[in-house]
Amino acid sequence: MTTASVRIIPGLISILATLMIWFVVPVPEGVTSNAWHLLALFVGTVVAIIGKAMPIGALAILAITLVALTGVTNDSPSGAIKDALSGFSNSLIWLIGIAIIISRGLAKTGLGNRIGYYFISLFGKKTIGIGYALAISELVIAPVTPSNTARGGGIIHPIMKSIASSFGSSPEEGTSRKIGHYLALVNYHINPITSAMFITATAPNPLIVKLIADATGSDISITWGTWALAALLPGLVCIALVPLVVYAIYPPEIKSTPDARTYAQSKLVEMGPMSYGEKIMVAVFAMLLVLWAGVPAAIFGPDLAVNTTAVAFLGLSVLLVTGVLSWDDVLKEKSAWDTVVWFSALVMMATYLNKLGLVTWFSHVVESNIEHLGFDWAISVVILVAIYFYVHYFFASTTAHITAMFAAFYAAGLALGAPPLYLGLLLAGASSLMMSLTHYATGTSPIIFGSGYVSMENWWVMGFIMSIVNLAVWGVVGGLWWKVLGYW
Amino acid sequence: MTTASVRIIPGLISILATLMIWFVVPVPEGVTSNAWHLLALFVGTVVAIIGKAMPIGALAILAITLVALTGVTNDSPSGAIKDALSGFSNSLIWLIGIAIIISRGLAKTGLGNRIGYYFISLFGKKTIGIGYALAISELVIAPVTPSNTARGGGIIHPIMKSIASSFGSSPEEGTSRKIGHYLALVNYHINPITSAMFITATAPNPLIVKLIADATGSDISITWGTWALAALLPGLVCIALVPLVVYAIYPPEIKSTPDARTYAQSKLVEMGPMSYGEKIMVAVFAMLLVLWAGVPAAIFGPDLAVNTTAVAFLGLSVLLVTGVLSWDDVLKEKSAWDTVVWFSALVMMATYLNKLGLVTWFSHVVESNIEHLGFDWAISVVILVAIYFYVHYFFASTTAHITAMFAAFYAAGLALGAPPLYLGLLLAGASSLMMSLTHYATGTSPIIFGSGYVSMENWWVMGFIMSIVNLAVWGVVGGLWWKVLGYW
Repeated sequence: MTTASVRIIPGLISILATLMIWFVVPVPEGVTSNAWHLLALFVGTVVAIIGKAMPIGALAILAITLVALTGVTNDSPSGAIKDALSGFSNSLIWLIGIAIIISRGLAKTGLGNRIGYYFISLFGKKTIGIGYALAISELVIAPVTPSNTARGGGIIHPIMKSIASSFGSSPEEGTSRKIGHYLALVNYHINPITSAMFITATAPNPLIVKLIADATGSDISITWGTWALAALLPGLVCIALVPLVVYAIYPPEIKSTPDARTYAQSKLVEMGPMSYGEKIMVAVFAMLLVLWAGVPAAIFGPDLAVNTTAVAFLGLSVLLVTGVLSWDDVLKEKSAWDTVVWFSALVMMATYLNKLGLVTWFSHVVESNIEHLGFDWAISVVILVAIYFYVHYFFASTTAHITAMFAAFYAAGLALGAPPLYLGLLLAGASSLMMSLTHYATGTSPIIFGSGYVSMENWWVMGFIMSIVNLAVWGVVGGLWWKVLGYW
Repeated sequence: MTTASVRIIPGLISILATLMIWFVVPVPEGVTSNAWHLLALFVGTVVAIIGKAMPIGALAILAITLVALTGVTNDSPSGAIKDALSGFSNSLIWLIGIAIIISRGLAKTGLGNRIGYYFISLFGKKTIGIGYALAISELVIAPVTPSNTARGGGIIHPIMKSIASSFGSSPEEGTSRKIGHYLALVNYHINPITSAMFITATAPNPLIVKLIADATGSDISITWGTWALAALLPGLVCIALVPLVVYAIYPPEIKSTPDARTYAQSKLVEMGPMSYGEKIMVAVFAMLLVLWAGVPAAIFGPDLAVNTTAVAFLGLSVLLVTGVLSWDDVLKEKSAWDTVVWFSALVMMATYLNKLGLVTWFSHVVESNIEHLGFDWAISVVILVAIYFYVHYFFASTTAHITAMFAAFYAAGLALGAPPLYLGLLLAGASSLMMSLTHYATGTSPIIFGSGYVSMENWWVMGFIMSIVNLAVWGVVGGLWWKVLGYW
């Protein structure tokens, strides 16, 4: 019942940043004042989130309130509230929320412990071995799970949590750093890389193929095989690096556990056969994987195509009907409601920044300025890719980012003389790898971040470091590999 | 972990009803098969809700899943999930959710108890006196609160809950029937009546004025004064009846409390001066009332017009920034999340029944059939109004219902020779009074129902009884009154 709910200094900085952009910085030519004011609100919100002025969900409520009351997206009050609430019917939001709720079933039924012990009994000698086991699990299913959120957040993350809790590592008990912190970061940073490796590993990749074909008058038409081959070497190098880099930066307290495998095996024996609830959970996860991979549509034709989020709802329906989860379990899964609220607010703001033309304006500014610099194509490409990549600090979805910026940046690079396929593959990779940056960069981020193993500071530090590693590997190793393949 | 989560018999009846409508009943001419199939899903859902096959929130998840997977609203899977989730960005949904969360502040700060004791100290001698005090409180603010949800659910309901809990009556302790059950029903059934009394007492009333003007070639243009005068007598009679009728049907256990007033006074003395949190709560409720009443816009012009839901968000923002509510308080307010989910699903289904043309088709069927019956206008009007009214069992919003059906039913009545102003005022009244029927009839319903004092059976029984009382008063007392006024 005190004002301790607001941290004063970060709160003031956030308000100051908002007011500066809104009132002091002149609105650039070619930008509407509404777009600029929304940018002020968005920057203020992100600054407050970074500075932890209030819990992120509370900041989301303030952001929705400000968008609704200032009318930056719409002059009419009823139009403004409609825009401000639009994030809540975004299907990615509910994929995230429902995935979090479904994974509650793993803890409730005990299947989570079983999977955890099983993984430990196989790979548990060294913590780093578990990291690699998770990475390989995700890589194996990546070609057939076109939603990276479903894959990294819906399938691998529950396994990761189960392993951490089998080692007695949980945020509630303050024991994240034992092993959960490490595994969560590995879990997260594998996701952008597997997304970059296959056209079918994240939703916007086919769009990239189309944008490249359009920009080159269909001269360059990237097939599934071309993409996969091109990404194979840099992808594998990055995957090999993730568990090591995370280990070096944030070492887990539990590093070597010589007895863990036998301990886990004895625990498995102790658990005995699977319960009713565990069996249902296994069936539901199998169903999710089969449907997320699009198996029915592949066999019986496109009439059986299903939406990723609809599949998640189906999974939850099964758990409710079978009584594995009660409706009360759903309601008390606070992290799901928290994530739905804050991610909706950020997605909404980022969407309207785009709709109001700010992103297009920014792309044009970059495009025209980079020519004036007069560097050769190689340096220009480094600058272009870096800007394209790090602007993702301002996005809550790769699809929105790619839709708004890919074509302009690709065209700018071509105009500067960059080899078309080299540049295309590099920007395509960057379009997934940029997911590493923030805890709102893609749908996977709020799920893993929401589990609470990793603080925001550590999330952002690790994200920045991985961004350098991934970009260097994709640009240099990838570039050489594509030269060898004769792609440029 | 058993199937006890589904009650088998109601579950089977619900599935059977769905399958019968979907596969057995032939799709009527003029109706698309998609519209008919959606009707099957909607009826199945409502049957399951009535039969309590599962908790209503779980049924909402199943309904969303079915709409998303069957594609009744949209052939493309991504379009279908978008439609299925559309309810979640409806601003009425969030007005309801946020109002529930804000009222949590009354309990947390102790202001609720203070208000409860204060009311009791004034009116607490007889339970029925408290009922009338609530009714008059709502009537007083009705002309200036155009959102009936904000009024009945956001302002009066928290007071009602506070009174009940001061009497030690709460659903959690199984003591609803002491007094809370009675007061909740009075709280609820006053809301449709006050909505019917002023053009400015519920959102769609101005639309009705326009529809009547359109249908009569602007011959009949109802002013604020005409409406208020016409509704004054039937409205006051209904308000006078509500506390009595509820008392007769579901008498409270606590009827007379001769010592309650002195007890409440002593409690107030004991509580001492208001705390920081209580003062903030008073300020927030005052702000809500002022903004919901549109005071700034009335004084300073339409630039300061604000949306009702945006105001609710502002209220919550203030409570979060001042620390009166923590973000964790918000997340653990399970009834808010519950209501947001189930009401979204129902609003979504009802919206698409309308969008797919089922309601228009139904209106036309009624219109053409009623002429063939060949009754005189008086009987025809009774049939017309009854159908218009009781079809609200299939709606989750009066606005949608009015938009879809008012014009057709009004035109049909005029064609049958009904006096234009009499019929207009009667249908206008019915358009609000039909809110009494279900626990999803208007935004106020899920808020009060969600507090848990009244079981679904009792809610529906009381709703049906009040519908008869209200319609009789409006048609007979109203009709005579309008004759006296020379309106027909």
